[in-house]
Amino acid sequence: MGEQDAGTSKPSREKGDTRVAPGLVRFELLHEDASGTKARRGRLHTPHGPVETPIFMPVGTVGSVKGVGPDDLVNLDAQIILGNTYHLMLRPGEALVGEMGGLHQFVSWNRPMLTDSGGFQVFSLSEKRKITEEGAAFQSHLDGARHFLTPERSIEIQETLGADVIMAFDECPPSMSERSYLEKSLDRTTRWLHRCVKAWGRERSSLFGIVQGGLHEDLRKRHAEEVCAVDLPGYALGGYSVGEVPEAMHAGVAYSAPLLPRDKPRYLMGVGTPVDLVTCVEHGVDMFDCVLPTRCARNGLLFTSEGKLTIRNAAFAKDPRPVDPACSCYTCRNFSRAYLRHLFAAGEILAMRLNTLHNLHYFLGLMADVRRAIAEDRFAAFAREFRERARAQEAERTRGR
Amino acid sequence: MGEQDAGTSKPSREKGDTRVAPGLVRFELLHEDASGTKARRGRLHTPHGPVETPIFMPVGTVGSVKGVGPDDLVNLDAQIILGNTYHLMLRPGEALVGEMGGLHQFVSWNRPMLTDSGGFQVFSLSEKRKITEEGAAFQSHLDGARHFLTPERSIEIQETLGADVIMAFDECPPSMSERSYLEKSLDRTTRWLHRCVKAWGRERSSLFGIVQGGLHEDLRKRHAEEVCAVDLPGYALGGYSVGEVPEAMHAGVAYSAPLLPRDKPRYLMGVGTPVDLVTCVEHGVDMFDCVLPTRCARNGLLFTSEGKLTIRNAAFAKDPRPVDPACSCYTCRNFSRAYLRHLFAAGEILAMRLNTLHNLHYFLGLMADVRRAIAEDRFAAFAREFRERARAQEAERTRGR
Repeated sequence: MGEQDAGTSKPSREKGDTRVAPGLVRFELLHEDASGTKARRGRLHTPHGPVETPIFMPVGTVGSVKGVGPDDLVNLDAQIILGNTYHLMLRPGEALVGEMGGLHQFVSWNRPMLTDSGGFQVFSLSEKRKITEEGAAFQSHLDGARHFLTPERSIEIQETLGADVIMAFDECPPSMSERSYLEKSLDRTTRWLHRCVKAWGRERSSLFGIVQGGLHEDLRKRHAEEVCAVDLPGYALGGYSVGEVPEAMHAGVAYSAPLLPRDKPRYLMGVGTPVDLVTCVEHGVDMFDCVLPTRCARNGLLFTSEGKLTIRNAAFAKDPRPVDPACSCYTCRNFSRAYLRHLFAAGEILAMRLNTLHNLHYFLGLMADVRRAIAEDRFAAFAREFRERARAQEAERTRGR
Repeated sequence: MGEQDAGTSKPSREKGDTRVAPGLVRFELLHEDASGTKARRGRLHTPHGPVETPIFMPVGTVGSVKGVGPDDLVNLDAQIILGNTYHLMLRPGEALVGEMGGLHQFVSWNRPMLTDSGGFQVFSLSEKRKITEEGAAFQSHLDGARHFLTPERSIEIQETLGADVIMAFDECPPSMSERSYLEKSLDRTTRWLHRCVKAWGRERSSLFGIVQGGLHEDLRKRHAEEVCAVDLPGYALGGYSVGEVPEAMHAGVAYSAPLLPRDKPRYLMGVGTPVDLVTCVEHGVDMFDCVLPTRCARNGLLFTSEGKLTIRNAAFAKDPRPVDPACSCYTCRNFSRAYLRHLFAAGEILAMRLNTLHNLHYFLGLMADVRRAIAEDRFAAFAREFRERARAQEAERTRGR
């Protein structure tokens, strides 16, 4: 998974370089795949440097990508990470982060960063939140304290955090919502987008709009038109991977992604598995984020070129091989499955870091392979072979149970 | 704390270099302090390279120095780490470690390593163990399974693990034991030492003897004579820091350390605080190990040039300064007290690693300063000033409560 020099430890004395160059993000469309897919090779220019797309963004929920440090992320060549507005507004609070010089400075990350709007997490608190035209009232999952998030407040918080890319405050309705509810929700999300745009300071953070509409093509089309009528530096697809089967999500993205402007970055929020990434790149998506690689790592589920591997499996107790013999990450270069299984069984903190390093290396390496395949106009074959291999591996795995 | 280049990330592609050069460890006495102390500057030559003494050894209980990876330890310039026979024999079991090529290979550490005999942990299981002339029967703290550890078995396990330095199987009686019990225990420990020596293969692991005797000078003297009558590559003082006040321990070590041969390394087991280290170096000790820096780190207690700091303290919530402005570790170069407090409060895994990196850097840096002060014949002043500063800081800290 060559493009990255992941795992080799470079010095990370990059503190103090977290100043922001002026201007908004700008997308450069470098190449469109000529092998029959809609895949694109691009570059997102940000105040903290460029991001090569298609890209996967590791999620740094509460100001830390769980299990690893910024030094590890630099060694993995992570180009951009994500922070969660909902989590950060509650703890430590955006005012404190602002006083400490912003999120980049606070977490010691001088590469690009994106924050979500807080909407998704708030709307996931189904018991503890109430939506009105004004915004969303909710109770903190930490201490039950009452909060009120509006489009204006979300933008204010995100601008205080100071990420390079910030997201519009939208409602992400449950995937099985009634059509009548979806229609009302879309109208409100559009009104909220206009309020976000009005609140947006345009100084160092670039606002992306979010298209909702569930699995209804006509609603997606209508909402894409409304959202893309606002000239923004980028656009996202929300409301996918929220309970529907993967095939439905893939079909939805195949329809929706081309509705977004060709010359702007397209971000598919909260997706996904390796097959999801490859398939949605094929449909023209440029940016992804998901907790999958980091969360799975902490549960001992590792992604490899030979399929998924559950490290606690007794079969690995005396297995001297690395997790993935084809992998060049720090974990695979230095440790056996037997050792990783032992660390995991013993509850050692190091297990979390080594597993997370490996899974992130897999996801970031996959995206590097994806970028190369697009640049070389062979993405259709790459995607087809990747899916076939994944299917065969999954069948093998299921048989093995 | 200069001598170390700690925290800068050097590549750690050192796998495959874990082969062992033949021969036992050899101590080279480089210099004796000329400022009126018994401090010594030395070098322990081992099959995995030299160790500059006096040295502090981080403890890698179950095959991992808790909270950090071998890459971190190399970056911190840790010269030697310790593994616990008791923990490793139970999980994953020494046979498995042996099959995986030994402990160095298993944990991916190609620098020197020392294992204890398992005795200390077994004798700490006061409810679940029984001592006879043959050895110690005990039940695992993990699953209650019954085990029997003898001098021969301890040596066998340690040789299978394959550390550079292995320790004799001794009894470490409670500090408040009756004198009559201590005398019987010492006799048995001496007989056990002879059994260890007989079982010892002398191939790649070097056996150190252990002198016990509690706080009784005459018993220490008698036992030191018995133990040092056996020609071994090194000798240790056991049974200190097991409940007695620091002053009693310091007085005991002042008496006992000079009883050990001048031309062999002297290892004080399970010690200690920064003041303990400086004071016992003054009395002629060369090697130390303790879980203090790593365990305190996981509890948020950080050692600094200005005294101890409890990172969860509300006073640090908006403190943009590093933990220790005089420290050059990765943590202090990149993160504020505010961020570390946030990570700790949020229960982030990264808190454990960053705190541990800092505390180990402090302990290893202190020993580098100690070595320099000895080499420059100013150790008496160094130790006096260090203790005075620590006393003042502790008084300040107590007032501040």
